[in-house]
Amino acid sequence: MTLVDRANQVALARLLAAEPVLVNVRPAREVLPGLAERRLYHAGPPVPWERMCGPMRGAVIGALVYEGWAKDHGDAEALAGAGGIAYAPCHHVGAVGPMAGIISPSMDVFVVENRAHGNRAYATLNEGLGRALRYGANDETVIRRLVWMREVLAPALRVALGRLEEGIDLRALIAQALQMGDEVHNRNRAGTSLFFRAIARPMLQSGFPTEKVAEVFDFIAGNDHFFLNLSMAAAKAGLDAAHGVGGSSLVTAMARNGVEVGIRVSGLGDRWFTGPAAVPEGLFFPGYGPADANPDIGDSAITETAGLGGFAMAAAPAIVQFVGGRAEDAVRATLEMYEITLGEHGHYRIPALGFRGTPVGIDIRKVVETGTLPLINTGIAHRAPGIGQVGAGIVRPPMACFTEALAALAAARGAPA
Amino acid sequence: MTLVDRANQVALARLLAAEPVLVNVRPAREVLPGLAERRLYHAGPPVPWERMCGPMRGAVIGALVYEGWAKDHGDAEALAGAGGIAYAPCHHVGAVGPMAGIISPSMDVFVVENRAHGNRAYATLNEGLGRALRYGANDETVIRRLVWMREVLAPALRVALGRLEEGIDLRALIAQALQMGDEVHNRNRAGTSLFFRAIARPMLQSGFPTEKVAEVFDFIAGNDHFFLNLSMAAAKAGLDAAHGVGGSSLVTAMARNGVEVGIRVSGLGDRWFTGPAAVPEGLFFPGYGPADANPDIGDSAITETAGLGGFAMAAAPAIVQFVGGRAEDAVRATLEMYEITLGEHGHYRIPALGFRGTPVGIDIRKVVETGTLPLINTGIAHRAPGIGQVGAGIVRPPMACFTEALAALAAARGAPA
Repeated sequence: MTLVDRANQVALARLLAAEPVLVNVRPAREVLPGLAERRLYHAGPPVPWERMCGPMRGAVIGALVYEGWAKDHGDAEALAGAGGIAYAPCHHVGAVGPMAGIISPSMDVFVVENRAHGNRAYATLNEGLGRALRYGANDETVIRRLVWMREVLAPALRVALGRLEEGIDLRALIAQALQMGDEVHNRNRAGTSLFFRAIARPMLQSGFPTEKVAEVFDFIAGNDHFFLNLSMAAAKAGLDAAHGVGGSSLVTAMARNGVEVGIRVSGLGDRWFTGPAAVPEGLFFPGYGPADANPDIGDSAITETAGLGGFAMAAAPAIVQFVGGRAEDAVRATLEMYEITLGEHGHYRIPALGFRGTPVGIDIRKVVETGTLPLINTGIAHRAPGIGQVGAGIVRPPMACFTEALAALAAARGAPA
Repeated sequence: MTLVDRANQVALARLLAAEPVLVNVRPAREVLPGLAERRLYHAGPPVPWERMCGPMRGAVIGALVYEGWAKDHGDAEALAGAGGIAYAPCHHVGAVGPMAGIISPSMDVFVVENRAHGNRAYATLNEGLGRALRYGANDETVIRRLVWMREVLAPALRVALGRLEEGIDLRALIAQALQMGDEVHNRNRAGTSLFFRAIARPMLQSGFPTEKVAEVFDFIAGNDHFFLNLSMAAAKAGLDAAHGVGGSSLVTAMARNGVEVGIRVSGLGDRWFTGPAAVPEGLFFPGYGPADANPDIGDSAITETAGLGGFAMAAAPAIVQFVGGRAEDAVRATLEMYEITLGEHGHYRIPALGFRGTPVGIDIRKVVETGTLPLINTGIAHRAPGIGQVGAGIVRPPMACFTEALAALAAARGAPA
């Protein structure tokens, strides 16, 4: 067994041991550093305003209006590029956000504690379908919804969670959801239903007015993707625990900013290894097609990095109605991912594969050796700012991320310790 | 095409066209005939007290205490056999009940309307896990729960349903549940979760005190089998519409009283074709084994008769953890059932089989020709009265039901019209 193998054992064990528990919902400014100043966090590896893609720009503009830092969209666009706003990846502060992944100070985030390791991870609250900031839409409907989420949804969730002494065990919900046809990235109907079952009773007794609780019930029950941000935070909580093991070739993040895909590797510190983002292949909403699609965007590939999403597709054959392909492709996708992973998950199991654990722990060596790239289920954003989602599909990160990371790992080993 | 084929086309079309909608919850005495007198309905084909199995006797005794017709269990047992109580199958009044299937006048029943045909079907409300009347348990806990169901659960459901103008579309919930790992007989986690999502909001606004609504939330969310009785009533609503088509060899009911299995056939009127009930094979709870098991019991095989349950097992590979076997057995079970059925369901589809419709419409001719018997997922009751569930497994009805029915069909065709 090589030194890398031994380091990977340690990193993988930490990932598999993760016990992600939803413990709170807090305003981002209270739990993420740096939000006292005018700063936004975004999906993927670092990217300056000048290089941001359309949907991320759209989301930045919306966030500036939402925060009241700009009085309208034109004002916001001017401000966004004028140097007065700092931008940094969500991943740099233990957070993740789907699609554009914008987090501004007065948005609320889920607080997920990894009980096995003691670290915490954060994710925004899912806005629902249709026009949404994460897809780059930023009109009044979008801003109004963000305000309602801050004033009603987040406080109600916070009080309800406060009534649950043990929090909500996300590992248990994800394990169940995988037995109920979700892969918890692009299909979250079961996870959302189970979360609703868990939160309804404490929220009922939260003391909030019935009509506000009713609004929250409608919002959560009306959005089958609500659980996505929770599965993302759960995945991040486990992967951050596995990060920083010297010599390990295990991938601890895959993230896309709509221009580039970046990966981070456990033994290679905080460095991003990047390559150009591809356009996903999939199914488009009526009236849209591949020409409208922005290249791959969002932190949601953290689910695949943790052995979920595309890696757990065999658990979710019905997802092909959303991302395209046939039911047997879903099984094939999961089987392929065993070739590039270090282990099988002890809790996340796939009934259709005889309860085999999901493939987990991407090894950059195996990716380069086999030439098999990780498979990612993803939403597809329109490439122009202000429009929104146009479809859903499947995509793979560029090989360059993995070959460069592998070269860096070799260089690190050759270097004096 | 023979006359039988033509009749089967009509019967099958009615079954496939069913639109079961949950519209109300009412006391049985208000919607089922004959309950003004001292009468109980029970699962399966007719059976007098003298021939009833242990769990059905246990449930009868419990029901007599619950109704206040007997002051204690000894008194109830004496009364049960003294001729003062009339017994009749649930099926004779458009109703179904799981396991012992006892319905007494002051128990509430779901009212399910088949919007396509105009008929209605009924089923009791599921009592939950552990000691339950349907499994023959009848101690104070069981009776107290039945009283709570009458005083809190049923009124809350009634008012909540009253707020839903369109009722709850059970066909849509079942279709979704099949994409979420349920077969809606022995696995109902998804169906229950989806039902909870649908009922929580109107119940929140029912005007009931918060602590009562909280009790109901806990009760439904705490019992993954809650949806079973709804899937049973939905199945019954479709099959009753398909019943009574002259010459049809389509099975419209399979039901077990714990001693005998009986089937009814669309073209053969209200006659039951019976044979001895077998002991299910499956998994037993700790401390119990096959020697404790009562033979097959309950009306829940109405789900299989409608192309669900064992017929839809391929949709629910995780069920093998409950009923035994391996995930691939679940797929094999469904594939086998296509051999004895007349069609494939247009709404109930199985992702893992490329979204093929479930096998539906058992043809007694095909059963006899192929020698393949319908496969039924089932709970297993202890054979003694007063104990309860000891396991879950798989069972098949006796061939005698089908050969006798086929002989009767031939005789009917030979007879003058």
